Amino acid sequence: MQSEATEKVVTAALIIIGNEILSGRTQDTNTSYIALKLAEKGIRLREVRVIPDTEEHIIETLNKLRTRYDYVFTTGGIGPTHDDITAESVAKAFGVELPINDEAFRILEQYYGIEKLTPARTKMARIPVGATLIPNSVSAAPGFVIGNVHVMAGVPRIMQAMLDHILGGLQSGAAVLTASLACGLAESDLAEEVGMLQSEHPDIEIGSYPQFRVGVLGLSIVMRSTVKESIETAMNKLILIVRNHGDEPMVSYQFSE
Amino acid sequence: MQSEATEKVVTAALIIIGNEILSGRTQDTNTSYIALKLAEKGIRLREVRVIPDTEEHIIETLNKLRTRYDYVFTTGGIGPTHDDITAESVAKAFGVELPINDEAFRILEQYYGIEKLTPARTKMARIPVGATLIPNSVSAAPGFVIGNVHVMAGVPRIMQAMLDHILGGLQSGAAVLTASLACGLAESDLAEEVGMLQSEHPDIEIGSYPQFRVGVLGLSIVMRSTVKESIETAMNKLILIVRNHGDEPMVSYQFSE
Repeated sequence: MQSEATEKVVTAALIIIGNEILSGRTQDTNTSYIALKLAEKGIRLREVRVIPDTEEHIIETLNKLRTRYDYVFTTGGIGPTHDDITAESVAKAFGVELPINDEAFRILEQYYGIEKLTPARTKMARIPVGATLIPNSVSAAPGFVIGNVHVMAGVPRIMQAMLDHILGGLQSGAAVLTASLACGLAESDLAEEVGMLQSEHPDIEIGSYPQFRVGVLGLSIVMRSTVKESIETAMNKLILIVRNHGDEPMVSYQFSE
Repeated sequence: MQSEATEKVVTAALIIIGNEILSGRTQDTNTSYIALKLAEKGIRLREVRVIPDTEEHIIETLNKLRTRYDYVFTTGGIGPTHDDITAESVAKAFGVELPINDEAFRILEQYYGIEKLTPARTKMARIPVGATLIPNSVSAAPGFVIGNVHVMAGVPRIMQAMLDHILGGLQSGAAVLTASLACGLAESDLAEEVGMLQSEHPDIEIGSYPQFRVGVLGLSIVMRSTVKESIETAMNKLILIVRNHGDEPMVSYQFSE
């Protein structure tokens, strides 16, 4: 029997702050890392927004999403340079001051030494009033949590260390279980039957994804649900459907049997 | 001398429709491809939103962004299955009907043959009234343009073929020129001086990006502007700054000299 607490749907949004993704210069990899880690905790990532580092855009996006989802995560813009304006924008979004945080200052002082703690580095100790720090085991300068907003670095290795640190403290939702089927049929061969299967199993989210593998168009059908038995029942039906079309599917379950 | 037309700033937003990116199952690569292609045309990608395939979310996002930017591009959700609801949602966002489009029907009929044109495949011929088709050289089923909204497939190879087809017809902006400098200094070593350089050159967008290369934290500083001479002047100053810190930078210009 599942407890009440584990069945709540917990939602999240991710805000990626940075011109380098929007210019195409940098390929984002933070989204999939964060999505997978949240899914393990039963937290559903419902929306991602990639926005430029302009104060107005950050404040507007943050204030929209933090009231709509249980958690908001941001990446990018918390370094020492002129284009790092995330902390200041978050403080304005929450209507609080952005003073030097004593704990953050001590962390930076210890990392750089007091004689190398330049004004630019000291900027990284400015944290909105009421926030708690997220440790940075890679390069010292901390992220922070204010309300339901988690502000992290954009460099993947640093972001990952920060996320790993905070995950344990997040509210868990019902874990999302996944099963997928791959076959060589065309998506449109199965569309009617998969649509009927979806109608029969409204508690499962069934997605159909055509993709090229080694230059050949194949198909993945993915089932996601919090109820293991539902997925197993629906997947057994789907296996029969694919076999009736003369193909032998490959099936994998991303949960322990 | 540049003509008036080439100096206009043309903006765009991208909406990625699909649960598979939000679940972390699929790594998005469409954003960087589209961003780079638009930049070549002088079109600035200003925002990306990844949203689930729910009608309400698609309509809300589309109506928000299509009034805010010159162009909106969408990827995903135009296939034959139950979870492909983009065309229907776009029609509702524009308040128009979604009938079978004669031209799209003929394209699908030719590709599949009339006897294999199942109801699911015929669904892909449903196009909002007033839209024009975007050819699909890979798998026939077309995308479409309605107003300033360009609706494309989510499978990268198909999306790329569609985008290549429409790029020529888009309004060009002033081309964004880029130069970048890589060095082994810490971002915070240069932060004050790069900040001053930004103040001296408000017509350039200067970004500072720490990153790990082979496990070592390095730094890239990127300059973007429509004015070549500004970039060259600022980059020469930056080279001197880096040398004064005892490092020899690597510099590259992404425009013809």
